[in-house]
Amino acid sequence: MDIEAYLKEQKSRIDRHLSEIIDSWKGSNGELPEVCQAMAYSLTAGGKRLRPILTVSCFRACSGEGEAVYNAGCALELIHTYTLIHDDLPIMDDDDFRRGLPTCHRKFGDRRAAFAGVGLLLKAFEVLESSAADLGLDRDRRAEAVASVAAATGGGGVIGGQVVDLESENRQIDDRALEYIHSHKTGALIRVSCTLGARLARAGEEMINALTAYGGNIGYAFQIVDDLLNEEGDFQEVGKGVGTDRARGKATFPARFGPQESRRMAARAVEAATEALSGSALAEDPMLPAIAGFILSRRK
Amino acid sequence: MDIEAYLKEQKSRIDRHLSEIIDSWKGSNGELPEVCQAMAYSLTAGGKRLRPILTVSCFRACSGEGEAVYNAGCALELIHTYTLIHDDLPIMDDDDFRRGLPTCHRKFGDRRAAFAGVGLLLKAFEVLESSAADLGLDRDRRAEAVASVAAATGGGGVIGGQVVDLESENRQIDDRALEYIHSHKTGALIRVSCTLGARLARAGEEMINALTAYGGNIGYAFQIVDDLLNEEGDFQEVGKGVGTDRARGKATFPARFGPQESRRMAARAVEAATEALSGSALAEDPMLPAIAGFILSRRK
Repeated sequence: MDIEAYLKEQKSRIDRHLSEIIDSWKGSNGELPEVCQAMAYSLTAGGKRLRPILTVSCFRACSGEGEAVYNAGCALELIHTYTLIHDDLPIMDDDDFRRGLPTCHRKFGDRRAAFAGVGLLLKAFEVLESSAADLGLDRDRRAEAVASVAAATGGGGVIGGQVVDLESENRQIDDRALEYIHSHKTGALIRVSCTLGARLARAGEEMINALTAYGGNIGYAFQIVDDLLNEEGDFQEVGKGVGTDRARGKATFPARFGPQESRRMAARAVEAATEALSGSALAEDPMLPAIAGFILSRRK
Repeated sequence: MDIEAYLKEQKSRIDRHLSEIIDSWKGSNGELPEVCQAMAYSLTAGGKRLRPILTVSCFRACSGEGEAVYNAGCALELIHTYTLIHDDLPIMDDDDFRRGLPTCHRKFGDRRAAFAGVGLLLKAFEVLESSAADLGLDRDRRAEAVASVAAATGGGGVIGGQVVDLESENRQIDDRALEYIHSHKTGALIRVSCTLGARLARAGEEMINALTAYGGNIGYAFQIVDDLLNEEGDFQEVGKGVGTDRARGKATFPARFGPQESRRMAARAVEAATEALSGSALAEDPMLPAIAGFILSRRK
């Protein structure tokens, strides 16, 4: 199967699971409570479903079996959507469009959007707990899996990166700070998407380490490409504001290294991601290198 | 031991555990990362520690044993502090003072306060997971305990109540909506503070049900007294804005039923809380009725 067809098929399976999760939020009257409407709006507003695809693909690459891995992947999409909703808020980036649609707070108001974000975060851990249980993980592995996702989301992960990012706007920062921001803000969740697949498949330390390196590198490449698309992309294709990073004085890879060197850095990271798999059973898997390659070539 | 001395002793033990939790957030340089500073500020800005005290007291009343229950109680204080920080934000209630000090966003800015809130929420579930493990709970009971706290916090609990509350400002609402707001916004977390103690002590359904009724009633009384203090209290004593509910057109008990009837309603709820304990082993416990009585008489 070629990578485009694989990604398309996985995305449609993930979207089906997300729909079921949203349905489970309906009240006894068959309707979604108000906050859940805003949660569902942002969750179904498109998206590549990269994080769940990584979880499912790494799970399979580690010989994991069980449909419940899709729900675990969806939990990461819920967390990702929480970060998007809060990032777009007026007190944060104040963005009006996301994936070609009005952002959550433009549609539902600031307050409801703020609640919707936290609501998604809470639901994510509920879904994650129950899918780890459905996969039959014992209590230590389950606690480890949940704790790894919580750590990747909190002050030592995504939130830590967001804070440094916002506080660095319009200030000179060094390469180390730029590295810190991106390895935490975007990298942490992509990395844990990969390692979560391994943990749910009961993989050993060696495989978890290989997937940490794989995930770290594709997360890095993903962020560089994201910066390039913000700088050079087309609004119609990208579905969100273009040129907004520069206007805001954001620390980005193209602003720092220029577009050509940035593209080279992304390509090197994708190579390193593939190399990280060699020498283990993961080297046999055809999909993981293909996903890494896709991240480099994506246009949105 | 009289109730005042008991509450004071428990509060100081809980504060010690909170300090240890905060210490665990320090980096390798011995300093708190920036978001954690804001988290620690709000967490140590005072507070009665009612929720952890309830968890510990209900745990003991159910014959639970183990010091780790204090950390589980602290997890609820972290969640409570998250709700306070977000409630005070300009997009929510826009309050300047809390417990006699500048609110988190007045001290650290809106963005950092928003992150600090979410950071506390994430840490809470980490702390809860590990304390349930320390108490030796098996995986099903642990998952149940964590899920009950997540449900009490999310759209079906605190957040659900906050949303309806904010959307009801300056609008006529009926008794059912007022009931919904308070049983969710304040009630859900107080209720789960009680039942969490029972679950951690491996209590049976009967005790969990009795403590659900106990917690529901004291939560109700707590909210009525809170409304009365907002209306009639003294800024020095209460430590936050007084008369702010009325200025904002909030749906409160005194605004709806008048102060005298509100006080009677609170007293009836405290009676019902104590009655809920009768007929079970919990009726023997001296502290639970005393805590209920304290809630009625509190001046801040």
